[in-house]
Amino acid sequence: MKYTNDTILNLFESALQQLQTPEEPELLYSPIIYSMSGGGKRLRPVLLLLTVDAFGGNVEEALPAGVAVEVFHNFTLLHDDIMDNASMRRGKPSVFAKWGGNVALLSGDTMLIIAYKYLARVGAKNLDRVLNIFSDMAIEVCEGQQYDMDFESAEKVSAVDYIQMIERKTSALLSGSAMIGATLAEASDDDVRKMHRFATELGLAFQLQDDMLDSYGDESLGKKIGGDILEGKQTYLMVQAMSRANDEQREVLRSTHKRKDIGDDEKIAIVKALYDALDVKHSTEQQIEIRFERALTILDTLSIAGERTKHLEEFARGLMGRKK
Amino acid sequence: MKYTNDTILNLFESALQQLQTPEEPELLYSPIIYSMSGGGKRLRPVLLLLTVDAFGGNVEEALPAGVAVEVFHNFTLLHDDIMDNASMRRGKPSVFAKWGGNVALLSGDTMLIIAYKYLARVGAKNLDRVLNIFSDMAIEVCEGQQYDMDFESAEKVSAVDYIQMIERKTSALLSGSAMIGATLAEASDDDVRKMHRFATELGLAFQLQDDMLDSYGDESLGKKIGGDILEGKQTYLMVQAMSRANDEQREVLRSTHKRKDIGDDEKIAIVKALYDALDVKHSTEQQIEIRFERALTILDTLSIAGERTKHLEEFARGLMGRKK
Repeated sequence: MKYTNDTILNLFESALQQLQTPEEPELLYSPIIYSMSGGGKRLRPVLLLLTVDAFGGNVEEALPAGVAVEVFHNFTLLHDDIMDNASMRRGKPSVFAKWGGNVALLSGDTMLIIAYKYLARVGAKNLDRVLNIFSDMAIEVCEGQQYDMDFESAEKVSAVDYIQMIERKTSALLSGSAMIGATLAEASDDDVRKMHRFATELGLAFQLQDDMLDSYGDESLGKKIGGDILEGKQTYLMVQAMSRANDEQREVLRSTHKRKDIGDDEKIAIVKALYDALDVKHSTEQQIEIRFERALTILDTLSIAGERTKHLEEFARGLMGRKK
Repeated sequence: MKYTNDTILNLFESALQQLQTPEEPELLYSPIIYSMSGGGKRLRPVLLLLTVDAFGGNVEEALPAGVAVEVFHNFTLLHDDIMDNASMRRGKPSVFAKWGGNVALLSGDTMLIIAYKYLARVGAKNLDRVLNIFSDMAIEVCEGQQYDMDFESAEKVSAVDYIQMIERKTSALLSGSAMIGATLAEASDDDVRKMHRFATELGLAFQLQDDMLDSYGDESLGKKIGGDILEGKQTYLMVQAMSRANDEQREVLRSTHKRKDIGDDEKIAIVKALYDALDVKHSTEQQIEIRFERALTILDTLSIAGERTKHLEEFARGLMGRKK
């Protein structure tokens, strides 16, 4: 393996800087440049390229596929921000807030097409398979977003429903990236499938941890607590709490975020008190551990030498904010 | 040639009926079925398939590419209707009006991905080239839509600017369809280029005629007159009129659609009186004839026998509503 997570990220950032768009029409292309240069951790291309490297493939040749998944990811952010009416993204005004819904819509559409343009550069030999993985993944992401919106007005969301939703909305793009990387490196079908499962479990662990940090994160690290609670969003904690609550508690969980007679801090305190009473933190932590351990275990079953998965394991730990 | 315009349309409709989508999530897929079964003339797939046939290619094998361009076209309608706040489409409520902006947005995204899924079925040999034609065409359509929106608030739009806009917004999809058809039938690069020019000129003639019928159409045929005028839209007539008007006339052209003191019929009458005075009907008719004749002439320069272009010529005449 020639690359570490850091060197692969540097290589990718250089490739991304060569992403050129026409100057006109300015309102179509400026938001794309704004969105792509807005930082972010480039998790999906890094996972794709680390996978290529782990299976002994050519990382440089895979760079356009990395650009494709990153442009796709940013396309979803532009359109999600329209649907969620979100004014901020990565600490800056969202494209939606800065230019309005029509611009975010059309620039987003253009980004989805640009993603396919980059994908088409992966070389004729694997194009067909990579294209299918990419499109299937992209459709799963759209399905996940639709389920997420459906859940906002759903009477009851089970833990199974919720996991299936985040498998699409969060895991699919990580898993597609890993599968594309493995395919480009000519990994066996069995290894491609295993990379799919690795990234799916890792994505679930990551999303569940994100859910938990919204209620139990460390505010001293600058993390604002309770955003999901105030928005009345479905999270694993809320889904678990609803299933364990009695009728009276359920009504409190359902209605607190809509109350006008109390402030934000009090709303958060009420819901968190119920989370504590119903012990949902513990069962969420358990789920995170199960998923994360499962992901690492799958890495050990790949057909390649154990040392080749070292950087993928580091990636997984890094994603979860763990040193070791 | 095995097919006429009618038999090729029937074949395409059968292929389209096999378009299957999952049942869930219902709010993602129902609008797609609604949109695809909403009729329309299937102009783009018919042109694609007629081109395949003219160059002696396999029409059945090209059907998925036909589905791709038709799904893409309907994707643009879903998203355009959001941007234009349009409640009706083909005499029925638009997806935007029926389900709301978020559904039209996300179902539209999914349709763009489905279009690529169908495109990926064209066979490995031509996949790379067809994919590039399709993506370049798709980006042109987005650019055209952005220029169209830019023009709404532009101080001055020249005839050249306007033609360049509709070349992207209307012609690009016809021209991309023709190029994909020619490519799948293994036409020479020169013939592919000529099919591009044929469909570009035809698309311009078609759009300019559409512009003209908004002001000078036959109301007895059920065509409502003056819709573009009332919306204050840029059309070739308006662009020409603005360039010929004196300052006073220009102010009338610019402001009449916004007046609150008069009714719709009077607004239309005022603007049409200026169109007549400035003789824009005549110059628009001239442009239409020039573009249409140019399209037909290009067909004669293709490397294939003249009789093979018969159905393409019929298609062109049919598009313009001309018998002969």
